[in-house]
Amino acid sequence: MLADQQFLRIPGPSPIPPSVQLAMGKPMIGHRDQQAKSLIKQLSPKLKPIFGTEEDVIILTASGTAALEMAVVNTVAPGDEVLVLVTGAFGDRFVKICQAYGIKVHRLDTPWGEAINPQLVEAYIKQNPSLKGVFATYCETSTGVLNPVKELAAVVQQFSNALFIVDGVSCIGAVPVKMDAWGIDILVTGSQKAFMLPAGLAFVAASKRAWNRMESNSTPRFYLDLLRYRNSMQNDTTPFTPALSLLFGLEQVLRLFETEGMENVFTRHKLMMQMIREAFKAHHIELLTPEDAASPTVTAVKPTDFQVEALRQTLKKEFQLTIAGGQQQLKNQIFRIGHMGYCSPADVLQTISVIEVALVRIGKQLELGKGVEAAQRIYLS
Amino acid sequence: MLADQQFLRIPGPSPIPPSVQLAMGKPMIGHRDQQAKSLIKQLSPKLKPIFGTEEDVIILTASGTAALEMAVVNTVAPGDEVLVLVTGAFGDRFVKICQAYGIKVHRLDTPWGEAINPQLVEAYIKQNPSLKGVFATYCETSTGVLNPVKELAAVVQQFSNALFIVDGVSCIGAVPVKMDAWGIDILVTGSQKAFMLPAGLAFVAASKRAWNRMESNSTPRFYLDLLRYRNSMQNDTTPFTPALSLLFGLEQVLRLFETEGMENVFTRHKLMMQMIREAFKAHHIELLTPEDAASPTVTAVKPTDFQVEALRQTLKKEFQLTIAGGQQQLKNQIFRIGHMGYCSPADVLQTISVIEVALVRIGKQLELGKGVEAAQRIYLS
Repeated sequence: MLADQQFLRIPGPSPIPPSVQLAMGKPMIGHRDQQAKSLIKQLSPKLKPIFGTEEDVIILTASGTAALEMAVVNTVAPGDEVLVLVTGAFGDRFVKICQAYGIKVHRLDTPWGEAINPQLVEAYIKQNPSLKGVFATYCETSTGVLNPVKELAAVVQQFSNALFIVDGVSCIGAVPVKMDAWGIDILVTGSQKAFMLPAGLAFVAASKRAWNRMESNSTPRFYLDLLRYRNSMQNDTTPFTPALSLLFGLEQVLRLFETEGMENVFTRHKLMMQMIREAFKAHHIELLTPEDAASPTVTAVKPTDFQVEALRQTLKKEFQLTIAGGQQQLKNQIFRIGHMGYCSPADVLQTISVIEVALVRIGKQLELGKGVEAAQRIYLS
Repeated sequence: MLADQQFLRIPGPSPIPPSVQLAMGKPMIGHRDQQAKSLIKQLSPKLKPIFGTEEDVIILTASGTAALEMAVVNTVAPGDEVLVLVTGAFGDRFVKICQAYGIKVHRLDTPWGEAINPQLVEAYIKQNPSLKGVFATYCETSTGVLNPVKELAAVVQQFSNALFIVDGVSCIGAVPVKMDAWGIDILVTGSQKAFMLPAGLAFVAASKRAWNRMESNSTPRFYLDLLRYRNSMQNDTTPFTPALSLLFGLEQVLRLFETEGMENVFTRHKLMMQMIREAFKAHHIELLTPEDAASPTVTAVKPTDFQVEALRQTLKKEFQLTIAGGQQQLKNQIFRIGHMGYCSPADVLQTISVIEVALVRIGKQLELGKGVEAAQRIYLS
């Protein structure tokens, strides 16, 4: 087997473009130097349109989970009531973070693989007027569901005084979002998914309403204090030492986004999703999520006549291609293919063609090339 | 279209493995330092088994053409008679080099796309006993032909006093060669093909017979004087400044060869050739070379019902995938796919699937997925 080749098709971390890898190799600079200030100064404005906001987008040196925690500790306090809309493992994480801070959590669970129903949320929040926050996951990485955050934001803004807080980790940069127009109060994402970087940076934006809430919120916080980040931003710097090599990389990622055009980035992701879905449908292999709930960044497949682990191991062993398994209740039930960031329709065709080979290897009867053909047709249509 | 992605499927330069790219980025060292000596000392011994020789393998800082010239100027002199076996553009290059030095060239041309017939060579050299050298191309890059150098070497060694000199630029490292056992007197290759490096290094090995000839050969030479390189090698150095970053890369390439195992490298290349050939056969698209003359590193396709340039442009525009056109008399007649070095069966499946899409785009009627299926079957067989 060809040494030194690997295909990373998990729903993040995603592959790094060569020019980004190169940019991250630039010599280190002092984080309070003019050079660093110039770099930091230009990044946030370029993140705004990707978030669909006129507000500052804060760059945090941490994983996505720290950004979720940042959203919690800056907006709600021990004893406050919040509603968490749980559609999978990452909705569940919001619950755990809130509980760690003594926040009273209401949870509204949606079966894994389905999207949140805004009408149920409307009914719930009407009955619970004291909610301070409603937390949702845009793309639920564990199931490949893209939740209707636009509709959810409308419901929360209309029927509640709660802030609407969204985890966009596994989709922002790959799907459209209009934070200001839709009424999202806090939106966070990480660097290792559609942003084509290693993990280590997170991006957080807040609405005016949310910034106001933060001023008076009593939850103790230091590294995760969003206000500190906004204050530092006035001076083109960060409150704490930033991961400069990742910022070098981010600068290049934003150039690549500019080169392709964000609308084209979104179209490419949707196309890749459709190609993957049609390929499995052509083989009568079941998908976990229905069409209208599917995320353009990750697809979960729920086979009935072959073992998920056998497929994953064969792909790894023969092609050094990695896909993800299921988490928690979906362990061994599904596999997940990441198609976000540095991933093209040509990569999707390759992924499908080797999955077909691997399925034959593990004994599944199928017509070779049929899934590739279905994906090719979608590409050409 | 995804920015910063490109697929290089020409018959060299070939893609660079990430770990090799990384190795080439190491800080520069002094070329006469102990560190450089340690590096140089370990490289040549590891090249020997790849060449199938017990003799020293010289590392030259230059392109492959300089290595061809090195083979000429060290072994023959103005006025000497040589036979060049021409099967395409690179056989032709040997002729031009010899002519530049006033060497009397006999040429035996084989139609482009076919392999040299050893019996014709036997007949020719029997009638021309004064030949000092016979030059052949192992893989003719311009046609995708792998010439029968083992049989040719046997003929030359049996019926002539000429040295048998072989251009192995586009195949050594991807196909077996037993220089000593077969009786090749000089074998050269470059770094940018199966060796997975940028252009800039060439490797040259010579038999005892050839080294003896060099001692007395009168052709003036300096940078290309092979004897200087062998002398320097005694001191673990090079006569002139070597391209050190490429040597850092070569060190890593040799590690990758070791990891995969050379026999597996050869098997992989043969498999990729068969996959590509069957894919085109499944679509009834003609191949330039017959099965028994085909090279495991490059495949030439000779379509009759679509334009080569239209296909190449579509692949480039839609997928950033580059294949080569034809050279000289085959311009616009053929296209050539490189499948050597850092290229896997998964890459071949991808290449075929996007070529199918591109063919539909340019208006060819074909069954999508059929070529992929044929290649998948070969892989699984």
